[in-house]
Amino acid sequence: MFKPAPVDQNQLADALKPFGQSRMLPVGAYLDEAVLAWEREHLFAGWVALGRSEEIGKPRQMKAFGLGSSGVLVTRGDDLELRGFENACRHRGHELLACDATAEARAIVCPYHAWAYRLTGELIGAPGHKEAESFDPADYPLHPVDVREWHGWLFADRGSSKTFEEHVQGLDAILANYEGQELVTVETHEYDVAANWKVVVENYQECYHCSSIHPELCVVSPPESGDNIDPQGDWMGGDMDLRDFAATMSLDGHSDGIVMAKLDEREQRTVMYLALLPNMLLSLHPDYVMTHLLTPLAPGKTRIRCSWAFPRQVAERAGFDPAYAVDFWDLTNRQDWAACESVQRGMSTPGYVPGPMAPAEDGVYDFVRYVARAYAGE
Amino acid sequence: MFKPAPVDQNQLADALKPFGQSRMLPVGAYLDEAVLAWEREHLFAGWVALGRSEEIGKPRQMKAFGLGSSGVLVTRGDDLELRGFENACRHRGHELLACDATAEARAIVCPYHAWAYRLTGELIGAPGHKEAESFDPADYPLHPVDVREWHGWLFADRGSSKTFEEHVQGLDAILANYEGQELVTVETHEYDVAANWKVVVENYQECYHCSSIHPELCVVSPPESGDNIDPQGDWMGGDMDLRDFAATMSLDGHSDGIVMAKLDEREQRTVMYLALLPNMLLSLHPDYVMTHLLTPLAPGKTRIRCSWAFPRQVAERAGFDPAYAVDFWDLTNRQDWAACESVQRGMSTPGYVPGPMAPAEDGVYDFVRYVARAYAGE
Amino acid sequence: MFKPAPVDQNQLADALKPFGQSRMLPVGAYLDEAVLAWEREHLFAGWVALGRSEEIGKPRQMKAFGLGSSGVLVTRGDDLELRGFENACRHRGHELLACDATAEARAIVCPYHAWAYRLTGELIGAPGHKEAESFDPADYPLHPVDVREWHGWLFADRGSSKTFEEHVQGLDAILANYEGQELVTVETHEYDVAANWKVVVENYQECYHCSSIHPELCVVSPPESGDNIDPQGDWMGGDMDLRDFAATMSLDGHSDGIVMAKLDEREQRTVMYLALLPNMLLSLHPDYVMTHLLTPLAPGKTRIRCSWAFPRQVAERAGFDPAYAVDFWDLTNRQDWAACESVQRGMSTPGYVPGPMAPAEDGVYDFVRYVARAYAGE
Repeated sequence: MFKPAPVDQNQLADALKPFGQSRMLPVGAYLDEAVLAWEREHLFAGWVALGRSEEIGKPRQMKAFGLGSSGVLVTRGDDLELRGFENACRHRGHELLACDATAEARAIVCPYHAWAYRLTGELIGAPGHKEAESFDPADYPLHPVDVREWHGWLFADRGSSKTFEEHVQGLDAILANYEGQELVTVETHEYDVAANWKVVVENYQECYHCSSIHPELCVVSPPESGDNIDPQGDWMGGDMDLRDFAATMSLDGHSDGIVMAKLDEREQRTVMYLALLPNMLLSLHPDYVMTHLLTPLAPGKTRIRCSWAFPRQVAERAGFDPAYAVDFWDLTNRQDWAACESVQRGMSTPGYVPGPMAPAEDGVYDFVRYVARAYAGE
Repeated sequence: MFKPAPVDQNQLADALKPFGQSRMLPVGAYLDEAVLAWEREHLFAGWVALGRSEEIGKPRQMKAFGLGSSGVLVTRGDDLELRGFENACRHRGHELLACDATAEARAIVCPYHAWAYRLTGELIGAPGHKEAESFDPADYPLHPVDVREWHGWLFADRGSSKTFEEHVQGLDAILANYEGQELVTVETHEYDVAANWKVVVENYQECYHCSSIHPELCVVSPPESGDNIDPQGDWMGGDMDLRDFAATMSLDGHSDGIVMAKLDEREQRTVMYLALLPNMLLSLHPDYVMTHLLTPLAPGKTRIRCSWAFPRQVAERAGFDPAYAVDFWDLTNRQDWAACESVQRGMSTPGYVPGPMAPAEDGVYDFVRYVARAYAGE
Repeated sequence: MFKPAPVDQNQLADALKPFGQSRMLPVGAYLDEAVLAWEREHLFAGWVALGRSEEIGKPRQMKAFGLGSSGVLVTRGDDLELRGFENACRHRGHELLACDATAEARAIVCPYHAWAYRLTGELIGAPGHKEAESFDPADYPLHPVDVREWHGWLFADRGSSKTFEEHVQGLDAILANYEGQELVTVETHEYDVAANWKVVVENYQECYHCSSIHPELCVVSPPESGDNIDPQGDWMGGDMDLRDFAATMSLDGHSDGIVMAKLDEREQRTVMYLALLPNMLLSLHPDYVMTHLLTPLAPGKTRIRCSWAFPRQVAERAGFDPAYAVDFWDLTNRQDWAACESVQRGMSTPGYVPGPMAPAEDGVYDFVRYVARAYAGE
C-alpha cells in the first residue's frame, strides 16, 4: 500500500495549489532524513539515468555505474544486448567491478573468490564446489536490473510502475535532431554540493536568478527569454534564446565546434534545458550537449556529475579543445552551487515557511507540483 | 505545555540537591542528541549573545551573525535603531547576507533573485511581479528577531519569556566601569572543541583545576582567590585577584594597554569572570575584556569564538600589539579545551555516574543548578 | 532478561542451518547501528583483548588501553598484581591517563583536579575537601574492571557470564610452545577499514580468496592447505602449511628471526590462524606472532591494530629488522581490507540476500554460527 511522504500536510496542500497561489515544497522535504529515505524508495527506485553507453558499445564490454550506496553493472552481450545487474556477487556481496570501472571479458568474474557469471547473469563457475551436493549454480544468478539505452544514455529501473516509454513520453521528438547516440563525452566534472537535490533542480528550472548571479550567462542569452513546454512523462523544461551574435553558450558566444547537422532553425538559435526526473538535467546546445547527473548523498548533500558531449567528428578532431563550453559552464555551475548551498542553510532558519513563486518561475512550479503529487500519491 | 528535558530523573534530582550533597548533571546531558535538541528549543531560543555592535555603528550598516545552523541579520536604520531579522529571504530562503559579512546599503537585497527589503524589514521589491495579481508584498516582510545592544554587545531573542532586563538583572552595575560601548575588538580566535558546551562552562566556573593545568595562570593570579557572587538573572560568576606584581593576566603580568579610566580600586586588582547563559563568557580585566561565545554544533562539539577588546585609545594607538593578552589566553584556552575534551571522552565510560563537587566548585554548582532547574521546568 | 539481536529472524534461521545448507548472517548484522549497539552490550562487554603486558611488567607501571569510545586503565601494584579500572576520574570524568599512554607512579593522579587514587583504586586524596563534612573518599573508588594476563596479552571483562578459562578453553595447549609471555612487540600498524568488524573476521577465517587476491601469500603457503580445529570456548581457527622452501611467511619465504625453541615439528612447518572473539586475531608463525585487534567504530568502520612480536633474543639483537615479516603482512593486510570494503559496499545493494558458503569455508561457518547463536541467545 502506498505510504505518503512524511512531510507537513498543510504545507503540502499549499504546494499543490494552482500556479500563482502555490508555495514551495514543505521545508522538511529539504532537511529530513525520513523524506530522503522515502524519495529513495519511491522516486529513485524507478528509472534513473546512469551515464553514457559509449564505453560499452562493443560485445563483451561492461561497466559499473555508481548510484550512491550501491551500483549497477551493465554488460553488452555477444548478441549486442545490454543487460543490467546489481553490482554484488551472490556469494559474499563483493562488488563485481569497481565503481566507474570498465572491462571487456567473456564472463563476469568476482575479484574476491572468482565466482564467474555469464554476461547474461547465470552463475557458471564457483571454485571448489564439486563436492558440494546441495549447491546448484542455478540458484545464484546475478540479481537483474532493467536497463535501457536511449539516445546514447543509459537508464536503470529497479521497480518502476512505468514503462520507459511512459517515463520519457514526448521527449524523443525534442531530442531527435541532436543525434544523441552519435555524441562523444569529452569532459566530466564532479561536484559535491551542500544542498538538497531538489534545490539544485529548482535552481535549474528558472532563469529568474540569472540577472543576479550569472553575468556571463546574460551576455550570451537573454535571461527572460525562457519558454517552457507543457510537461509530459517524468520531465519538464523549456528553451532559451541565444543572442544574435552568439553561436552557443560560451564566455563570448563563439563555438569551437560545429552546429549539429540536423537541427532546425529554432534549435540552432536556442538552448533546450530539460529535467528528466529524478536525476538528470539535459542541456541541448546547437553544438554540444551538457548533462548533470544528481546523486543525493544526504538531505543536505548532492553529488553532481556534469559532462560535456560533442558530435563525434568534433570530439575526434585533432587538437579539439572543449574549454569554450566547459569553462563557461564550470563558472556558471559554481555560481549556482553557491546559491543552492545558501538556500539550504537559509531553510534551517527558525520560522522558515515555504515561499511563493514569481511569474517567471512556472518551470519551478512544474517541478514542485510533480514532486508534491508524488509525495501525496496522486 | 512545558516538556522537561529528556534526562535521567534520578540523576536530575541529585543535581538539584543542596551544595555539598549535589552531583553533576545527568550524563545524558552531555552525550545525547535529544538533550541538545531540547536545549536548542529551550535555552538557546531565548536571549543569546551575537557579538559586538562596532561594525554596525552607523546608519545603513548591517551584519549577519551566525548561530549554528542559522543566522540573524542585524541592521541599523536611518533612525539609528537596531533591528534583527532571520537571515533568510521570504522567497526561496537564500541567506540575505553571508554569515559574518557586513554591508552598508539603503536596502537589504537578496543575492539570489534581488528581492529587496527596507532596513526595517518590509518587502519593497520583488522583480517580475507586476503582472502577479495575487501577490501582495505586505505578506512577505522579513521574520523579525528581537535584538538588543548592551555595553557594546549584541543579543538576539527568538522566543524568551523574559525581558532583556530580567535576563541580565544585576549585571549592569558590575559592567558599568568597564565602559563596554567604548571598547574595540582587536583580535578573535575560533576554536572547534570536541566537548559539550556545558563542559566548557563548567570548566570556566572553577579554578580548582588551575594548579593542575594552568601553571602560567597561577603565576599571575592565586588560583584559590576566587570569590563568587550570588547569582541573579541568567548569569553567574565572580572575581579572582591579581598577584601584587601583576598588572593584568599575561605571561609575566605586564600590560601593554592602560588601566580603564573608571575602575575602582578593587576592579583594578581583580579579574571578573562571568557566564551569561547560555552562550557568553565575559572576562573583565583592568585593561581589556575577553569574551568567549559558544555555539553547540553537536552534543560533543562546540564552536568557540574568543575575542579581545581594548579601550579605543589603546586599540587605535599606532603599533599597539595585543599579544601580551592574546598569547596568554590562547595558551590557557588550549589547556582548557584539552581538559574539556578528555572529560567528554571520559563520560562515555560504561558505568560513569555524575561526580560530586569540591567545596571550591560553588561556581560550578550555580551553573549546574541553573541548567538542572531549566531541565525540570522550575 | 536476554534480548535477541535486532536482526531478520528468517535470515538468522538460515545462518543457523547445518554447514552446506546455511547462509551468511542477516544483512542488517553488517549495516545497522542497532545491531552494533547490541553487539557492544553483549559481545564486547565480555572478555576483550587490550594488548600486550610488556609495558607494565614492573611494579607501579600503568597503561590506558583504548576500546572505542572509552578505555581501561591497567595498573601493576607493588604486589605485582594487575588491576583494571574504567579510565575516568570519579570527580568530573576526565581520563586518568591519555589513551595509549603509560606511566610509572605510586598513585593514579587525575590530571584535571589532582584527585589521587591508590594503584588498587581507592581514592586517597581530593584536594580542598578538608572542610567538606559530607564527603567520604570511600564513596569514590575507581570503577573496577576485571583484567587478566595470558601468554603476555592483556584482557578485560566488564560483564561476562564466563570465566576467562571458559573463554579460552582448549587454547592454552595450542599456544604453549610459542612462549607468548617472552615475546616482544617490535612494530604496530593501525588501519581504519570501511567495513564491519565481522567482515574482517570472516575474511580471516578462509583462504578461499587467497588465489584471487593474495599472489604473494600463495608463493609461500598453499592456499588450500588449511585445516580447521573443532571450535571450543570463544575461539576458532586452524593452521596452514608452509611450502617446503619457506621458513616463514615473507615475500620469499626467508626469515630474519629464529625458529622458536619449543616448537614441535608440525609447528615449525605451519602457521596457526586463530580468531579469539570478539576482537583478536592471532597468527602464530614459527618465528613470530602477529595479532590484529579490532575495534568497531561504526557498523561500516573498524579500527585494526596489527602488531608483530618476536622472541626477546631476536627483538633485542642489534640491527634486527622485522621488515621481512611486516612488509609481507602489510601488503597482505591491504589486499584484505580492500576486499572487505568492497563487500561492505556490495551488501548495501537493494535485494542483497546472504550468500552460501563454499566447502572450503568451514572456518567462516564456525564464526557465523558463533555469532548467530549469540544473536539468538543460544
